[in-house]
Amino acid sequence: MAKGLLISVSGPSGAGKGSVLAKVKEMDPSFGTSVSVTTREPREGEKEGVDYFFKSKEEFTQMIEEGEIIEYDEFVGNYYGTPTVALQEMSEEGTDVLLDLTIAGSMALKENFEQSVTIFLLPPSLEELENRLKGRGTESEEMIKARLEVAKNEIGFVGNFDYVVVNDDIDEAAKKIYSIITSEKCRVPRNIELLQSL
Amino acid sequence: MAKGLLISVSGPSGAGKGSVLAKVKEMDPSFGTSVSVTTREPREGEKEGVDYFFKSKEEFTQMIEEGEIIEYDEFVGNYYGTPTVALQEMSEEGTDVLLDLTIAGSMALKENFEQSVTIFLLPPSLEELENRLKGRGTESEEMIKARLEVAKNEIGFVGNFDYVVVNDDIDEAAKKIYSIITSEKCRVPRNIELLQSL
Repeated sequence: MAKGLLISVSGPSGAGKGSVLAKVKEMDPSFGTSVSVTTREPREGEKEGVDYFFKSKEEFTQMIEEGEIIEYDEFVGNYYGTPTVALQEMSEEGTDVLLDLTIAGSMALKENFEQSVTIFLLPPSLEELENRLKGRGTESEEMIKARLEVAKNEIGFVGNFDYVVVNDDIDEAAKKIYSIITSEKCRVPRNIELLQSL
Repeated sequence: MAKGLLISVSGPSGAGKGSVLAKVKEMDPSFGTSVSVTTREPREGEKEGVDYFFKSKEEFTQMIEEGEIIEYDEFVGNYYGTPTVALQEMSEEGTDVLLDLTIAGSMALKENFEQSVTIFLLPPSLEELENRLKGRGTESEEMIKARLEVAKNEIGFVGNFDYVVVNDDIDEAAKKIYSIITSEKCRVPRNIELLQSL
């Protein structure tokens, strides 16, 4: 059986990754998703292995050292990471997995898995990105300025990705991502078994 | 402006290229198609430049020598070819062009145009291909046997194509080809102008 694809979507804060990925999953609920590992305390109602895998900082550090985490990020003193083993297992079972990864995470995925597909989601323009960040109404002028600087830096990495999708419309962007996945399954190197059977 | 893609579909006789390509054009009538050059006499109602470009054998031979024809084939004593210039012009204008080419034609396209996308259309199985050829009711047992031998040979070339699509359902196969085209437009190397503008 062909391995499931590991599809990562990266992009600057405000590009709309969350909404677009939710729409893709709506289009096809059979996609797998990754449960992150975190060092923060479980909140009420959160379940181990469903919402997160909860680990101590020591355990988390050990996982990093042993290559069990493909990427991690720090947020208000806690670590959040994507575990490698779960991705491998889902892919081996033939499940396609959608991942919301940092740029470093997508690059690590590309380096480690031949069944990876890396997509960079772009906002229509930097002006529009600024409007979206302002529209959230949750961040100071200075924080937004900082985020825009980070975004400009991040956009410089697009060249390392396989695909680029401009998110000027969530439905259209989701359809494009879905087309990329359909298309990748038709690529000749991904159909060796089929071709050998003929 | 980004160049239009030159999308070729090849495959053995009976794979269903004609029906699948007609379905793709139905999904999006904006695709360009190539008008072939032929040495046969125009039939009643056929128009120069619409149905075919009608040429003498001498003119046709000269076009081949001058590299103006990307592929050609002989059928009952007449030549049929795909002219290169028309493809270039449509592509430069930003039009995506759908082409029904021989295997040699797809390989020539791939070699000459970086905006090419080559797709091999497969029948679901050789048994099904045999059934389809028999179902046409137009060919002798021997001719069908010969076609199947040719098909087996042709299938050996799939590895040189970019994509492989199995035609077990015309609508599904057409949707896959449409997805491949959408996806190719998102590939990073095809978006250099967009990335430079950022």
